[in-house]
Amino acid sequence: MTTELYPRERLGQVRDAAAKAGLDAVLLTPGPDLRYVTGYDAKQLERLTCLVVPAGGEAFLVVPRLEVPAAQASPAGALGVELVPWDETDDPYAVVAARLPRGLTTVGVADRMWAVMALRFRAALPGAEQVAAGSVLRELRMRKSPAEVAALREAGEAIDRVHRRVPDILKAGRTEREVGRDIADAITAEGHAQVDFVIVGSGPNGANPHAELSDRVIRPGEPVVVDIGGTMPSGYCSDSTRNYCVGEPPADYQAYYEVLVVAQRASREAVRPGATPATVDAAARDVITDAGYGEHFFHRTGHGIGLESHEDPYIVAGNLEPLEPGMAFSIEPGIYPGPHGARIEDIVVCTEEGHTSMNLTDHTLKIID
Amino acid sequence: MTTELYPRERLGQVRDAAAKAGLDAVLLTPGPDLRYVTGYDAKQLERLTCLVVPAGGEAFLVVPRLEVPAAQASPAGALGVELVPWDETDDPYAVVAARLPRGLTTVGVADRMWAVMALRFRAALPGAEQVAAGSVLRELRMRKSPAEVAALREAGEAIDRVHRRVPDILKAGRTEREVGRDIADAITAEGHAQVDFVIVGSGPNGANPHAELSDRVIRPGEPVVVDIGGTMPSGYCSDSTRNYCVGEPPADYQAYYEVLVVAQRASREAVRPGATPATVDAAARDVITDAGYGEHFFHRTGHGIGLESHEDPYIVAGNLEPLEPGMAFSIEPGIYPGPHGARIEDIVVCTEEGHTSMNLTDHTLKIID
Repeated sequence: MTTELYPRERLGQVRDAAAKAGLDAVLLTPGPDLRYVTGYDAKQLERLTCLVVPAGGEAFLVVPRLEVPAAQASPAGALGVELVPWDETDDPYAVVAARLPRGLTTVGVADRMWAVMALRFRAALPGAEQVAAGSVLRELRMRKSPAEVAALREAGEAIDRVHRRVPDILKAGRTEREVGRDIADAITAEGHAQVDFVIVGSGPNGANPHAELSDRVIRPGEPVVVDIGGTMPSGYCSDSTRNYCVGEPPADYQAYYEVLVVAQRASREAVRPGATPATVDAAARDVITDAGYGEHFFHRTGHGIGLESHEDPYIVAGNLEPLEPGMAFSIEPGIYPGPHGARIEDIVVCTEEGHTSMNLTDHTLKIID
Repeated sequence: MTTELYPRERLGQVRDAAAKAGLDAVLLTPGPDLRYVTGYDAKQLERLTCLVVPAGGEAFLVVPRLEVPAAQASPAGALGVELVPWDETDDPYAVVAARLPRGLTTVGVADRMWAVMALRFRAALPGAEQVAAGSVLRELRMRKSPAEVAALREAGEAIDRVHRRVPDILKAGRTEREVGRDIADAITAEGHAQVDFVIVGSGPNGANPHAELSDRVIRPGEPVVVDIGGTMPSGYCSDSTRNYCVGEPPADYQAYYEVLVVAQRASREAVRPGATPATVDAAARDVITDAGYGEHFFHRTGHGIGLESHEDPYIVAGNLEPLEPGMAFSIEPGIYPGPHGARIEDIVVCTEEGHTSMNLTDHTLKIID
C-alpha cells in the first residue's frame, strides 16, 4: 500500500512509545500490530515471524527462510529493517534472544501473538516480564491518520454498495444461507479482499445479534437484519448493518424501528472530542429505555475499527477515556424484543466538530417488493 | 458434525491427560483445541469464550451472552457442559477465576490463545504458571481416530477433484492470480468450507516454495507448482501439491522432476510405526542429495495435518518421536534449482502396515495442451 497509509515513521513512534512505557523491547508476530507498524501483511504460521523493536536499538525482522521473498516484497522490505532468516532446524526464539541485550526486564508482546509463542519467548528471555504490546500500540492505532480515515471511507463506500445490492438478492422464498452466499460474493465483487462476516437474521433470528446463517426460508412480512463487513486490500475493515423487509413489516416492529433510528442518531450526535464512550453509549440507551425497550438492548453500542473489525475504543458503559479526533468506531444500537429485531450500524470517525460517517446509505427500513 | 468425529469422551480424556501432566486446569479459547474437544467451531473474538477443564471438577464454558445461542446450537451444547454467560460490563477473566479453586499452581492455555488473553488470565490467576495446553492435547490430536482419518480422506478426495480440474483452468496467457482465483472457487465448489491457501508458482516463482499469487503471465513451456488446500465443513484440512506445464517442459526440469518422484515415494515408503520423522525426512533428502540436488531442497519434508493444516508431527531432521498408526502428515519434498522448481505433496496416514495416502491423483507431470 502507499507510504502514506503505512508511513515509515511508525517504527520510530513504536520505539519511542515503548521506551516511554518502560518496555525494553516489543515483539510483533503477524497480525494487525505488525501490519500497522510495517505494512507487512504476514501470514500467521507455526514458523515464527517476528518484528523485534528494541527500545534502545535497531529493529529487526526474524523470518523463516521460506518467507524471505514475501517479507522482502512487502512494504517491510523497503523500511530498511534488517531481515534475519532462520532455517528449518534453528530455534528462532534463541535467534531473537541472542540479538537482544541480556537482562531485559519487560517486553511487550503483540496482543494476538499465539500463547505458545509467548511462552517460548518467556523461556528464551527468562526474567523478562511480558505485557500486552497493545497497551502501547493502541495509543497510536486508536487515532487514525487522514490516510487511515480515507481507507475507512473507501471500505465504507464498498460496503454501502453491497447494501444497495441487497434488495436484488434478498427475496422471500430464499434461505438465509442462499442470501448470505450472494452477499458474500458481492462483498468481494465490490472491492474487499476478504469477507469477514455476513449476518442475515430473518424473523426470530433477527432477535439474535450474532445469528449464524441458517437454512431458514425468508417469508413475506419478516424483517431481516443484514450486518456485513470485510477487509479491503488496504487492510482496513468495513462493517454496516441495515434492515430489510419483503413486503410490509408488522406494526410492533415499525414502532420500535422508529425508536431505533432516533437512538442511533442521538448516539452519533453525542460523538465529539472530549465526550466519553460511556456517554455515547448512554445517548442511544436512554432513548431506547425511555421508549420502554431498555431490556431489549443488551449489548454495547459499538467497537473501534481499523485494521481489525473490533478494536479500541469500545463504546460501552464504564469506558471514560475521552474521544479524540481520528478515533473510528461503530454506532450500532439494536432492539430485540422478538419475534424479530433490528440494529442500525454506521462506522463514524470523531472530528474536531463532531463526527463524520463512513456509511451513507440511509436508515429507513428497506421495503423489498 | 457426528458424535463419531467429535466423541463425547474427549472431555474426559483431556481432563485425565491434564491431571497426569500436573495441570490443575486447561483453558481453551476458540481454535482447533476447543473444536477438537467439543466440536464447537467458535469464532475468535475480542470477547472471551473459554472452555475451562479443571483437573478435579466439572468443565464449564464461559461465553459472551451474545454467543450463547451459537454455543447452545453447537455440538458443545449437547455435551452437558455448563454454559456460563457473561455480560458486556463483566470481567470474564474474574468469572473464570471465581469458579476455579484458589491456589492453582499450573494451568494449560490453548496454544493459539491470544497473548492478551493469556496475560489477562495470568493476572486473574496469580501464582498459576502457564504452560502450552498443546503439550497435553498434541498427544491426543496427533493420533487420528478412524472417523478423523475418514474426514481427512474426504478432504483429500475433495482437493484431488480440484487438481483434476486444474488442466481446464491453467492456460498459457493467464496470470497466476487469474488461475488462482478460479482454483479457489473450485476448492469451495468441491466441498470445502474455506480456502486456506492457493499457490500457483509459475516459472521462477515455482522456485519459491511459498510464492504469493502474482500478476505474472504463465507462458508455454513453463512448469507450474500448484499447492492448494482448504478446510472441510468437518473441520479437517486438505493439502496437496501437483505440477503442471503448458506444453513441453525444459529438459533440465524433466531430469530433476524424475528424481523428485522417486524421492517422494521413498519418503512415503519409509513411513511405518516406529520409524521417526527424521528418517522419513532423510529418505527423501538422501535421494535428492545423491542426485546432486541437495542444496535445492531446503525445507522440511512435511507437517502434521488435521484440524490445522500445520500441526504435529513435523517431518523434519531432529524429530525422533516414533510414528504411530493414525498419525497424519504431508510428504512434500521439493527441488528448486531455478529458474523453476517442483514439489510433490500427498497427505498420508501411518497404518499398522506402513501408510495410506489421502491423495490419489498420480505424480506424473501434467502436460496441458
